[in-house]
This record gives sequence, C-alpha cells and structure tokens, in this order.
Amino acid sequence: MMKIKVGILGATGYTGMELLKKLDSHPNVKIVFLGAHNVVGKSAINLVSNLKNFGNIKINKNENIKNYNLDVIFSCLPHGELAKNLKKFKIKKETNIIDLSADFRLPDKIHNNWYKKRPKSVDAKIFKYVLPEINRDVNKGNIANPGCYATSILLGLSPIAKEINKKDIIVDTKSGVSGAGKSNKIEHIYNEVNENLSTYAVGTHRHKPEIEYILKKNYKSDINILIVPHLLPITRGILSNIYIQFENKVNIDSIYKKFTDFYQNQKFVKICKDELPAIKDVQFTNNCHIGLKTFKNSNVLLISSVIDNLIKGASGQAIQNMNLMYSLDESLGF
Amino acid sequence: MMKIKVGILGATGYTGMELLKKLDSHPNVKIVFLGAHNVVGKSAINLVSNLKNFGNIKINKNENIKNYNLDVIFSCLPHGELAKNLKKFKIKKETNIIDLSADFRLPDKIHNNWYKKRPKSVDAKIFKYVLPEINRDVNKGNIANPGCYATSILLGLSPIAKEINKKDIIVDTKSGVSGAGKSNKIEHIYNEVNENLSTYAVGTHRHKPEIEYILKKNYKSDINILIVPHLLPITRGILSNIYIQFENKVNIDSIYKKFTDFYQNQKFVKICKDELPAIKDVQFTNNCHIGLKTFKNSNVLLISSVIDNLIKGASGQAIQNMNLMYSLDESLGF
Amino acid sequence: MMKIKVGILGATGYTGMELLKKLDSHPNVKIVFLGAHNVVGKSAINLVSNLKNFGNIKINKNENIKNYNLDVIFSCLPHGELAKNLKKFKIKKETNIIDLSADFRLPDKIHNNWYKKRPKSVDAKIFKYVLPEINRDVNKGNIANPGCYATSILLGLSPIAKEINKKDIIVDTKSGVSGAGKSNKIEHIYNEVNENLSTYAVGTHRHKPEIEYILKKNYKSDINILIVPHLLPITRGILSNIYIQFENKVNIDSIYKKFTDFYQNQKFVKICKDELPAIKDVQFTNNCHIGLKTFKNSNVLLISSVIDNLIKGASGQAIQNMNLMYSLDESLGF
Amino acid sequence: MMKIKVGILGATGYTGMELLKKLDSHPNVKIVFLGAHNVVGKSAINLVSNLKNFGNIKINKNENIKNYNLDVIFSCLPHGELAKNLKKFKIKKETNIIDLSADFRLPDKIHNNWYKKRPKSVDAKIFKYVLPEINRDVNKGNIANPGCYATSILLGLSPIAKEINKKDIIVDTKSGVSGAGKSNKIEHIYNEVNENLSTYAVGTHRHKPEIEYILKKNYKSDINILIVPHLLPITRGILSNIYIQFENKVNIDSIYKKFTDFYQNQKFVKICKDELPAIKDVQFTNNCHIGLKTFKNSNVLLISSVIDNLIKGASGQAIQNMNLMYSLDESLGF
Repeated sequence: MMKIKVGILGATGYTGMELLKKLDSHPNVKIVFLGAHNVVGKSAINLVSNLKNFGNIKINKNENIKNYNLDVIFSCLPHGELAKNLKKFKIKKETNIIDLSADFRLPDKIHNNWYKKRPKSVDAKIFKYVLPEINRDVNKGNIANPGCYATSILLGLSPIAKEINKKDIIVDTKSGVSGAGKSNKIEHIYNEVNENLSTYAVGTHRHKPEIEYILKKNYKSDINILIVPHLLPITRGILSNIYIQFENKVNIDSIYKKFTDFYQNQKFVKICKDELPAIKDVQFTNNCHIGLKTFKNSNVLLISSVIDNLIKGASGQAIQNMNLMYSLDESLGF
Repeated sequence: MMKIKVGILGATGYTGMELLKKLDSHPNVKIVFLGAHNVVGKSAINLVSNLKNFGNIKINKNENIKNYNLDVIFSCLPHGELAKNLKKFKIKKETNIIDLSADFRLPDKIHNNWYKKRPKSVDAKIFKYVLPEINRDVNKGNIANPGCYATSILLGLSPIAKEINKKDIIVDTKSGVSGAGKSNKIEHIYNEVNENLSTYAVGTHRHKPEIEYILKKNYKSDINILIVPHLLPITRGILSNIYIQFENKVNIDSIYKKFTDFYQNQKFVKICKDELPAIKDVQFTNNCHIGLKTFKNSNVLLISSVIDNLIKGASGQAIQNMNLMYSLDESLGF
Repeated sequence: MMKIKVGILGATGYTGMELLKKLDSHPNVKIVFLGAHNVVGKSAINLVSNLKNFGNIKINKNENIKNYNLDVIFSCLPHGELAKNLKKFKIKKETNIIDLSADFRLPDKIHNNWYKKRPKSVDAKIFKYVLPEINRDVNKGNIANPGCYATSILLGLSPIAKEINKKDIIVDTKSGVSGAGKSNKIEHIYNEVNENLSTYAVGTHRHKPEIEYILKKNYKSDINILIVPHLLPITRGILSNIYIQFENKVNIDSIYKKFTDFYQNQKFVKICKDELPAIKDVQFTNNCHIGLKTFKNSNVLLISSVIDNLIKGASGQAIQNMNLMYSLDESLGF
Repeated sequence: MMKIKVGILGATGYTGMELLKKLDSHPNVKIVFLGAHNVVGKSAINLVSNLKNFGNIKINKNENIKNYNLDVIFSCLPHGELAKNLKKFKIKKETNIIDLSADFRLPDKIHNNWYKKRPKSVDAKIFKYVLPEINRDVNKGNIANPGCYATSILLGLSPIAKEINKKDIIVDTKSGVSGAGKSNKIEHIYNEVNENLSTYAVGTHRHKPEIEYILKKNYKSDINILIVPHLLPITRGILSNIYIQFENKVNIDSIYKKFTDFYQNQKFVKICKDELPAIKDVQFTNNCHIGLKTFKNSNVLLISSVIDNLIKGASGQAIQNMNLMYSLDESLGF
C-alpha cells in the first residue's frame, strides 16, 4: 500500500500534537516532517509518549519544510502565519495543504474585516472550505479546515438553514480552554479559568462571519448569528445551544426527521430527540451529537450541539478531510 | 446589645455550613442551636475550622429544636422536610423561620404541580417570599428564601418585567455543583462532573414556576421562562444568560437607566453596560452583577446575571433577610 | 485470522468501558458478551460513543455469561463479586479469566486478613498474578490483574528490590478519583474532591500487602511499604513517589543502569534520570514513566513512577496480558 | 480608636488582593494607598467586588508611595523588586514594612546563593523574619514574612526540631497554583495544570534554605530538607508530608504531647493524632492543621501539615504580624 507522505507545521501546539497522535497509527500515512519554532531537534516521542511508529522523527524548523516532498501538509500555525509564509515555504504544487487556521476560510472582503489582511501575493481561492458533513465532494487541492465553534454551530443549523432565512439566531456556546491554543494570556492561566465561567467576544467572535458566510453560500440563508461564547473550566469540548424562534409551534418529529435525513449517511453525527447531549459524550472522538428540544407553550426550538474542539473541531476533521481527499474510509485514523 | 438567638436546622449541608460560618462573626447574633441528622454530638468547629465564637456548640438532633427558645430559625433541610416536621418541631409562635428550601415559596396550586404535596395541616400563607432587592418591606414573620436560579433570574428580569409581558424568555443558565446540595447521585460524583458540561431539567426546572409566579405577582407580567440549566464543573456560582427578543431596536442606554434606577439603593447589585460579568466577580460574596448587551442588527437584549449560589442564592440572602427583619444594616455579617 | 472471543463482566464501570473502547479496535478480538447489572438491553454504543465495530452489542445481565462460549473473560466486577459468583457463572474450563479485581491476587492467608474472606469453594491458586514487565511468561489460564497503586509501585521497586531487603520504604502516592471506580460515597462527590487534596488509608491501603507479597515472592525481599495514598482532584492518573534511605551515597548512574537493564525490552516503561515524570506524560496510554533522583548531601533515592490508573493500572494491562497469553504483539489494541 | 494607616505595594496580584479583602474589614485599619504597575486609576472595588469600606480608593503607581504617610506598608512585589526600589520609595523611618517576598528573609551569604544578589545599598538586617507561632515577640520594625512552603513545614517541624538534629528530612509537598503568583509561564496555563500532577524544583526549591536557616537559628538544628514540591490542579492550599526516620519506635502520644504543648496558646494551629488533615479543612482560613501518624513495624513518623498558601502562607500571616506589632488580638481581620 502506498503511504501518504505527511508533514505538520506547528506540530508542538495542541492541534499539532493531536494530529501527530492520530496520524501515527493511521494505516495509510507516513509522517515525514514535523515543524515547529521551539524544541527543534527533539524526537516526536517527547511530545506524545505513546507513538508507535514515528516517535523517532526529529522536530525540524517550520521553514525547512521547503526541503521535503510531501503529499499532505497539515498547517497548525497561528492565524496569519501560513498566509505570510506561503511563498517562503516553497510548497510544491502537487502537495495538498490542509490549513487548520482561519487564513483561508473566508473571501477577501469578509476576511479583511475580521482578521489581519492577507498578503496581496496570496490567493485565497486556491483553498476550499470543507466541512465534510455539509460539502463532501473533496478532491485533491488545498483545504481550509473549519473553525471549532463554526463546526458545532454549522452542523446544528445546516439541516434547517433554508427555513430560518432572515432570522436572528441566538447561540449560547461554551468552549474548553484548548480552543485558545497554547495561549499564555493572563485570562488563560489556571487561576483565572479554574472555578470560573466567563463570556468573551460576545457578538463579535470571528466564527460569526464564518458561519454566516457558509450558510449563505451553501443554503442562500441570510442569518444573523448572535454568538455568545463562554470560557469553560475544562480542557476540551464545546457545547453550543442554538435557539430559534419560529412563528408557529414547532413539530419536533418533523424537525427530527429533517435532521436524520440530512445526516443519514454520516458516521460522525448522531441526532437525539427530547434529550440533549453532554460534552463527555463526544470527548476524544470525532463525533458531533445534536439534541433537539422544544418547550411547552412556546415556538422556540433548541438545537444543542457538542463536539471535541481539538478533534471534530480541528485535527480530527482535518484527518477526515485527508481521508476523503484520498478516497479512503473517512473514519480511518480514529 | 441584645443578640438575636439563632438556630440552624440541617447545619451540616453546604448551605448550613455557609450560614454557620457567616453567623459566627455576625455582631448581633448568638448561635444557640445547630441541628442535623448525622455527626450529632460533634462540635461546630469540626464543620467549619475557623469559627471564632461558637465553635464549641455541639451538633444536636434536628428534632430537639423543640427544646430551645429561638428568635430566628434558619431551615436548611431538604425540600419537604420542614413542611413535614413543622408540627413536630413545636416552633414557638414568636420565632421567625427563614426557610431555604422550596417548601413555602409557592401557593398550593402551583406547589403541588411541581413538588410533593405539602401536608394538609400546613398553611403556606404564614410564609412570605422575600427577595429583598424586589420586595424589601420585611417585617417579623416567616420567610420563604428564594431559590438560587430564581434569584439570579428575577434580579435580571425585574427592572423590565412590565415591558416583556406575554413573552417567551430564553434563559440559558449554568450552576456550580453545590446547587444540588450534598448529593451523592451518580451524576454528581467527581468523575461525571469533571471535564464535562451537561444540561438537565431543560424547560422543566422547578425554579421556572417560582420565577413566573413572582413576576406575575409583583409586576403582573405573564411570562414563559424557557429555562435551560447546565451543570458546571465548579463548586459554586451561577451565570444566567437571559435573552429577550424585542419588536424594535433596543436602546441600551435607556435599558441601563432602567436597571440603575431600579437598583439605585441596593448595595449588593451592580449593573454593567456592554460588559458582562464572570462568576469569579461575585464568588464568596452576596453580590449580584448584571451585564447588559445588545447585538448589531438585532432587537435582542442579553441580560447576564451572576451570583454565588450558596451566598446570594441561599445563605447570604437568608442572613440579609434576617438583617432586614431586625432593621439592621443589611450587609452585616458579610 | 481467528478472533479471540471476548466477554466483559461489569462492562458499565470505568474499567469496563475502557476495555470496551480499546477491544473494539483490537484487530484480533471479537466482543461477544457485555455484562452489567444496570442498563441491560441498551446498546454498547450508548456507553462509548465512538465504537466502530461492536456498538450494536446489547448489554446483558452478568449472570447470562453462562450461555456464552468465550475465549477470554475480563471481569470488572467489584471486589468479591467474581469469587462469590464463580460457580454460578459456569465458566467453561477452556475460557481464560482476566480478573481486574483483588479477588485472586493474594494467597488465602494474606487475602483474608485484608479483604472479605473468599468462599471456601473457590481455589485462588487457579489464578496467576501477572504484571508483565516483571513476570512475562504468560500461558493460557486465569490471570489476577495487578492493582493500580501496586502496578506503579512494583514497577518502581522491582529493579532494585534485592538491594533494599529489610527496609522501610516510604511511598507518598496520589491517585485520580477513577481509582475508586464509579463510587458514590460522599467523599467522592464533586464538591468534596474539587479544590482539595486529602490522604486516606494511610499505612493500611490494601495494595500494601499486594506489593510486599510480590516483592517477597519474586525477589525474596522482605520490605515494609509505608504507603500514604492521596485523592487527587483529577479523573485519571497516579504519581507514586518512593523514597529509599540507603546507608551510603547513591550512585545515580549505576541505579539508572540497573533500571534500564531491567526494562531494556519493555515497550511500555521509560526511565528518566534527574528528571521526574508528570501524570500528563502517560495519561491515556499504557506507559509507565519512572524518574530517578538523588539529593545533595543525602543517601536518599527518590523513584517517581507515573501511570494512567485506568490503563496501565487496570484495563490496558489486562489487554496486554491477553496479548501475551495469545503470543500477540503486546502493544496491540493501544 | 486610632486607625493604622496602611499601604499595599503590588495590590493587584493574588496576595495583594487577599490583603485588600481582609484589611477592608479590619476594625483597626485605614487603607490609604494601593500601588500597582497596571490598572492605575481604577477603583479598588474593581479588584475585589465586596469591599465595604475602601472600595473607592484609586490604584496608584507603586512609586508614588513616597508621597504618603503610612504606619504599615505591605509589600506584595515580586522577589527582588522591594530591595531594588527601597531607596526610590523613600519610606519613612517610622513606617513598618511587612514584606511578603523573599527579599529579606535570609542573611546575605545564603540569600545570594539562592536568589539574585541584593543591592549593596540595602541592609537586610533591618528586617526580622517573623513566623508568629515560633517567634512571637514582635516589636515595631520591618518584617520579612515567611514563604508559604516554609510556613507549613516550619510549623510541622519546630516542636521536635531539637530532636532531629543531623537528619535528612523528606518533605513531599504539594501546592495550589496561586503559590506561583499571577504567573503566565506556559507551565501555569490552564491546560498544562488541569488534570495533571507534576513535581518541580525537586531538592532545590528556594524555601529549602529558608527552612534550614530558621531551624538552625531557632533550635540549633542542623537539618537537611529533601524538598519535593508538586504543582496541584487547585487554586489554593498546601499539603506538606514530612517523613522522619527515627532510630527507635516512635511514641505517638509523647509526640502528640510535644506538639500540643508547643502550640498550646496558638489560636491558628490544630494538632490531630492518627488522623491527617485535608486542604479543604483550612482553605480560606489562617489556620494550620497538623496531623501525626506512625506506621506498623516502623520507626517513621509522618507529620502532615496543611495551610492556605494565600492566607497563612502569605497575606493572613502578614496581617497576623501587623496585629502583633500593634499589640492587637492576632485574629483581628479574619
């Protein structure tokens, strides 16, 4: 069996290490390059102690990726770094990049309103945004891997996106701290997060335009996401409560049917009716569980969606995208 | 100075111990009786290691309260226990009971739909529901102390309750585990709560009728609370996000003025505009912080209210109620 | 390839679910039976949401194991239950039991001093205690799987057991709460464990005789283990600090050589010199990391040993034992 | 009543805020100055939300302390900062400094081996190391407040220090993360600490010389402290296990008597026999609980000592020292 030759940029962050752990036991993968800006020279086994196959690979400088022939590059660099260094990395045309940052998720106009401008030399169109349960036709090429909040919310909204056009959608969402990466901001140190719950970026989180853009592109739905993110005192997991006010009474059975039809062939999505999932249900898996719930004497529908932000919200989805790109069983490596 | 002679029923639970800790240093209080069903005979200092004044009091059986002359009884018994034992406890007529359970918060009709029926012999009308920032005219008599979720949500809704009549109000609320008391249900053991977030009693939590009843009684507002409680992996604290869909654009300044006017003389309430409070801001205090927030291109108002469930949501509020009953500075003991 | 037909007794506890998760993707295993005393009739996928192969197996009553032909039974029943029910389960002679409880770890005389007496009908000698890094010659037959503390401490002491005969060995050890199983004792509820550290069973923990017995049996070392266990506010992981007072200065290099020689062919053990491992280094793996450290002007050696109590300390080691029993690569399934 | 005019340098760190909270309700204190290097201009109430008396004081620049007439200055600056700036702060001769850092705990020779050298201009002898349960004769003057680990360990060792001369003492000690201050080192961010236990500074922690120096100075005991600190996944609290190997069997009753005699007039110390304290027993108090335990067939004594590192290990002890300095009840403010 031919192996996919894989490199990881930013291998020492949380998403990089998660990729390393999973790719190490992927039957079709050969890890060839691990890039980082620190611990250069150390072996991979020092990052993830139970590697079976590629523990001896040495961490290299990110920029040395230019010397390697790779089939797939997973980029786990901080936002802005891949776009900035794309030229410098001299990535071969036939190499497929799967970028876990926000660098190439949005068209210029939207991107530049919410993030630092991309360098002019860079053409974002060479990347395709792929959330496989929504747009599964993955060919070779570069992929912009979805954001973590965006994944949980888009999976919750897509089955009924066409019916909620023009609506304000309240999304009360909570994430574990690893969603912020290996951040040493004061608000992410132990004493500030522990025994606390706080909101941040209310109404302005950068996954808002990502969600709205994809809903418009895929379903022509013009939706205003009122996003309220919270920092949870846990390491990993996202729970997103999506509240939709309908004009009339919601028929939960018909909603449930829409969801199960929409996801009928999807291995990683599970729909529950009148029962809501917990973060523990999906932690350390690539699954997304979605619960549906209505309220007495009310036209409100609650869609509650949980994922592991480091797996379905980042590294797992990236591997799933690679699997689809190579026409492999999408659950290989999990 | 005459001291208020105080007894606590159920002193070994979390709210009982919190009362003990605070009443021990209250300048106008003499703790006379501590009741429990376990550790009878042990000294109070074994429950709370830094008692200064009443550490030597021995834990007694709850039922022995009948032998004591008390000015105030704080009842921290589990729901149903005080109503069931009221006769047996032979509480003197001149003693004022402050009940922290749900036994006497609601009129019969509502109570019996949501809780186990009260014994026929018991007349709930002899208890008055007092959330002091809303109904401050406390005379001597028995008090039904508000529930923890109810406190945070009523404080968030009261200033505009009259303007939201007939509305469905979404309340996405999260509580630390001490809200469940010293419960040893499997869902409250460490491994199940830790590194998790889960919802429970969605749309059916028993503080829903409490909130709706008080809003109707105080403001004639007929409101449908869509309550979505979560179990947070922390010991103490509640954060309640209240979402209100208005027909027109919300003027945040005018809303802010309504809130600051409403709470202008309240020591324990703080209002923030365009900034939302975190649980840490009020932990270990009797404060309630309320943040107000609107969203771009939307008529939704978010009211975010945080309290410490064991203090403002239970024992602190009970002491505040006692202070008011005796015309003392309401912040004594804090 | 012939598959090993496997059953699990007590599949809904923490060690049972861990086995289920790992055996589901073990290339040589067919899960045939899952026993429990609760949730009977539910599918396995409800216990572990990312099962790929055996998610549809229904949970059965433990006692129905008598109707199944199995090659291997993993017993995750509480202490005492397997011994009590061995007859009733009518386990075939050719079936190999791997018992994760303490029922068959010790000879009668010691067992009955520390645990409830075994039924007279039961012959403990048909079980062999196997900690594979110490006694690797596993044939078919029944296995008593080592305790979690015992695993971490025996791996730390074995390489030098012969040189510490007649000594008092201080073992300051700390375990995550899952070591207590799905316990709903008050001391294991969230609020009691969270933000706390406490000792328990100091000098009397039941892994003390297990460790002493194995050291005597394997190395003729007569050692007094002064065990000081702590309950850590984490879900999984053990860190055992073993302090040995020598008569003379300790040569760390020679100690290090003894350890690396002793474990030279062991895939799951890593030895560090002058550097001590953290629980995170081995969490979710079958690894044991051991750090060696001496102190200035002192003859004390510190051996610090970390494992994941649910994997190397229980379910992982059980699978490793099964692998060895069937002459498979011992790391299959990890 | 004359009030003590107090200033705090470094008021926005964890020990500074703890001081602020407690001094605010101290009957003999008037807070006059709060210094910091950030949030200058904000009111104190933004740091601690339940201040009753001094919430309106504005945070000032540390260096502006030179403009204030103060009776007592609590310095919560990072190690080295007070010594460096002592001249610049132009502190009046009659002002008493209580320094919570390590700047003035040790004589030059030892200090300069373990910490950055003190400026030559500074004379350390003008500071007196005061751990009040050990050396209670506090006069006016400057005080070096003991370190947190040192406090828990010195309180555990002092009663028998004279009998353990020339010994190696093993101290396996564990601290909550606030012991590191408001540190944003990667090892102190949430994801690294949470669900982990790790050792650090083994044998080399800077409280080792502090403990050894005080034991020698006070009791002429020449002791080698083998200190093994751990970082606990909790915010506050220290549990120190001190293991002493005696030549002969330990009489626990006689040891217990030595401890209770030694601490007979101490309000904040509690001694337990055959029972060991947990961190929760003393959290949020100025107490130190010490448990004594022997082991079967062994001459080892375990002394287990717990404190709250931010209170008895820092700010509480500083206030206790101020109280003694002014001949007040030492428990005022708690």
